[in-house]
Amino acid sequence: MTIDEAKKIYLDVREKNNAFGLCFYLNGLDIETECAPGGCLDYRSKQLSVIDSLLYDMNTSENYKKAVETLNENKASLDCDLAHEIEVSANNMRDLALVPKDEYLKYSELVNKAYPAYVKAKAESDYSVFEPYMDKIVKYLRKYVKWVGRDGKEGYDVLLDKYEPGYTAKDYDKFFDLLRQKLVPFIKKIVAKTPDVPEFAKKLYPKAGQVEFCEYLRHVMCFDNEYTGVLESEHPFTTNNGSHDVRITNHYHEDLMSSAIFSAIHEMGHGLYELQIDDKFEGTNCSGGASLAMHESQSRLMENMVGRSLEFWQIHFPKLKEIFKEQLDGVSCEDFYRYANRVEYSLIRTEADELTYPIHVMIRYEIEKDLISGKIDAKDIPTVWNKKYFDYMGIRVPNDKNGCLQDMHWSDGSLGYFPTYALGSAYAAQIYDAMSKDVDIPASVKSGTVRALEDWLREHLHKYGASKYPKELLKIATGKEFDPNYYIDYLIKKYSDIYGI
Amino acid sequence: MTIDEAKKIYLDVREKNNAFGLCFYLNGLDIETECAPGGCLDYRSKQLSVIDSLLYDMNTSENYKKAVETLNENKASLDCDLAHEIEVSANNMRDLALVPKDEYLKYSELVNKAYPAYVKAKAESDYSVFEPYMDKIVKYLRKYVKWVGRDGKEGYDVLLDKYEPGYTAKDYDKFFDLLRQKLVPFIKKIVAKTPDVPEFAKKLYPKAGQVEFCEYLRHVMCFDNEYTGVLESEHPFTTNNGSHDVRITNHYHEDLMSSAIFSAIHEMGHGLYELQIDDKFEGTNCSGGASLAMHESQSRLMENMVGRSLEFWQIHFPKLKEIFKEQLDGVSCEDFYRYANRVEYSLIRTEADELTYPIHVMIRYEIEKDLISGKIDAKDIPTVWNKKYFDYMGIRVPNDKNGCLQDMHWSDGSLGYFPTYALGSAYAAQIYDAMSKDVDIPASVKSGTVRALEDWLREHLHKYGASKYPKELLKIATGKEFDPNYYIDYLIKKYSDIYGI
Repeated sequence: MTIDEAKKIYLDVREKNNAFGLCFYLNGLDIETECAPGGCLDYRSKQLSVIDSLLYDMNTSENYKKAVETLNENKASLDCDLAHEIEVSANNMRDLALVPKDEYLKYSELVNKAYPAYVKAKAESDYSVFEPYMDKIVKYLRKYVKWVGRDGKEGYDVLLDKYEPGYTAKDYDKFFDLLRQKLVPFIKKIVAKTPDVPEFAKKLYPKAGQVEFCEYLRHVMCFDNEYTGVLESEHPFTTNNGSHDVRITNHYHEDLMSSAIFSAIHEMGHGLYELQIDDKFEGTNCSGGASLAMHESQSRLMENMVGRSLEFWQIHFPKLKEIFKEQLDGVSCEDFYRYANRVEYSLIRTEADELTYPIHVMIRYEIEKDLISGKIDAKDIPTVWNKKYFDYMGIRVPNDKNGCLQDMHWSDGSLGYFPTYALGSAYAAQIYDAMSKDVDIPASVKSGTVRALEDWLREHLHKYGASKYPKELLKIATGKEFDPNYYIDYLIKKYSDIYGI
Repeated sequence: MTIDEAKKIYLDVREKNNAFGLCFYLNGLDIETECAPGGCLDYRSKQLSVIDSLLYDMNTSENYKKAVETLNENKASLDCDLAHEIEVSANNMRDLALVPKDEYLKYSELVNKAYPAYVKAKAESDYSVFEPYMDKIVKYLRKYVKWVGRDGKEGYDVLLDKYEPGYTAKDYDKFFDLLRQKLVPFIKKIVAKTPDVPEFAKKLYPKAGQVEFCEYLRHVMCFDNEYTGVLESEHPFTTNNGSHDVRITNHYHEDLMSSAIFSAIHEMGHGLYELQIDDKFEGTNCSGGASLAMHESQSRLMENMVGRSLEFWQIHFPKLKEIFKEQLDGVSCEDFYRYANRVEYSLIRTEADELTYPIHVMIRYEIEKDLISGKIDAKDIPTVWNKKYFDYMGIRVPNDKNGCLQDMHWSDGSLGYFPTYALGSAYAAQIYDAMSKDVDIPASVKSGTVRALEDWLREHLHKYGASKYPKELLKIATGKEFDPNYYIDYLIKKYSDIYGI
């Protein structure tokens, strides 16, 4: 096969993969937002399976394999973006080929059935309903890491690398050790000094006003162009089809106004990343963000480092007060700032504050590691979970629903995903530090929009899309290797200031 | 090829066609409802073209052709539903094979470009912007009917048959002749007696109240189960993915409250048809309604014959009045009933009343017929259009936007589609007559929901899906061949009563 022949085959399959991507994009969006409650079940799953199986055949065909191998062997002659995606595709293909086909298909079926079982288990707050599925998932993944492991990567490393290429348990251990040593005792001190929930935060904030303020925030966040949209869903998320169709969702709780505000800023952080990726990557495998943690860094940077800063609220609190005159009567910008940075131990990861959030992730990381190594089994999860929540945060988990069943990630076999959430916050701190050398961030935030920050992020990070590995990209953006101390230092400084420690 | 081999190939292609159908369904829904304004353009069209071209290859492959031919030759040995869809597929495939491939692809491209040109022309109210495209479309269709014509069907017949199988220009001529003779002079008399728009209809009706009443109507129309949903779009429509996911849309005009009410009833008529199709047809080509006119019969029956009846408003007007206390103060049910059945000559088809509506369709039918026969060309359309509107209704068309550019159908080459709209109303009258022999319709409507009507429609019509040709199905449902006199008689009786003629 000549390089040109190989390229033709590769590009043809890529084009089809991307075309089918539209269907998965629209389906996900519809199911989470507007779909009739009964409208997304049997028939639709059957249709999606047919497309899945077409994709499987296409991406494992002998012809395609040969094309990718040919290109991978001749990477030097390709342009660097294509060379990068070929390397990634070759790795994915090699992994897929190492999995026995019957096991692969059996596992796909298992995962399809596991999600409804998880939903049922959560609704009934009974882990035992989900346990048989989780047990099979864990057992499959233990086999999977054996089939696929290579190049010194083994066990849990294999999974971690799937979600954040280039990171092993050794990297994460170093990171979480630092958190355990420096952050965990610091958080304990802060939590002890945390103020009560202020009276204004206990009031009701009608949805219409929240929607109005979030629309206002779209201008602030430069997320108000013709390629963007905001919908409603149970849990906020961001999704996109290329860089010209980026949708975020939100959920408005009248009794917890801060939720929609910070969700909006968080999701717009994700959304801006996608919007700012170079158009030249459209339709290639270099479109989209570089990795899960890199994506999360962009949402966390905006939500926590910008959106929970004092200068942000100095400019935008008057608008919030104008909308909620009655509820915020007598409340100062500083009151609101302190409320937005309240710290407390809590049960639910997605509702956790900036400071305690990584503890939730660390607990999941520790459990996943032990599951894959065989130190614990699926049946042990609730006990281990509850013990860790008590040991790290001193809180008692009242039931499985608010404990080990709170997140859906394990139900689709996504072990190795959670750690990227914490890593993302750490990236964010390092990126923020680098940006602050070029941009006067507080002054920019005070200008009323985050335009200057976005411009910097586009040039130093966003525009590259997925054409670089995350470690490489972090180095491009910050000039340095990943260093979690930026994150620890940032958190300790910020919360020491606020809490006067 | 054995029958079993042929069946396997046929079912495999059908399954893939249906799976891709999900993508088109979701895309259409998204573009018309929630899509970001710039989010549905270039990239998405490219993705859809890739899927389109996959479909084309699949549905014209030698293997598939042979399978369909084998099955069609052995129809007698198949179950009757499969035999029916094989006959339809064989016809479609034969038509496709008669079109030279290069012409087919060129035409697809033309049609893709014609729509944006049409949108521009309409925005500028300037037919000349669209004329070059329309000219090419007409010229292609004149060739198309020559390539595909057979079995005594030629010219415009070929197109008519595509949209309403079994109907030729001869059938439609008979139908429209009757309208011209009996209805056109009758309408003239009615219009002369039509009352002014009542004061209450000129008031503003806030959207929230309209939404509340339309939600109430979902219960009335039995369209409130877990498989249904209501969204907003510029123009109301119905769409579905199988029978377990049926979405309607609406548009709320605060200065024209009747619009959303009758749109809701109309679209729910379409939606109920889809919901009540037998589950056994899911994933087959017998799913969906039997034809365009049959679908329209179900929406028109509900909108006009049920939704604009006096007994309907005797039951539901109090609810409307409860929501719009101020606006409807002093208005009686009879006032509202007369308003809902006001008749007047007007410019826009989609906003026309029940009685003048078929005149709008007839005008389009006459123009299409002359375009295909070559009696007129694309350049003549505005002149001819305006003359007919004056001749039939005595009104002057002020501009192209409100004249020949008001509908988008011609921009995608759908000549032959319009007549099904008028035919649908005529089917509705015949079906209503048959139903009234089994069901006391006024009493059922007064019961508060249309459940009894829906049950009758399911058993006599809906459940068959597309497993019958429309003429066949009409005979099953009504026991008779199509007879447009039911329609004429119904209209003349209803409006003679209301207008005291």
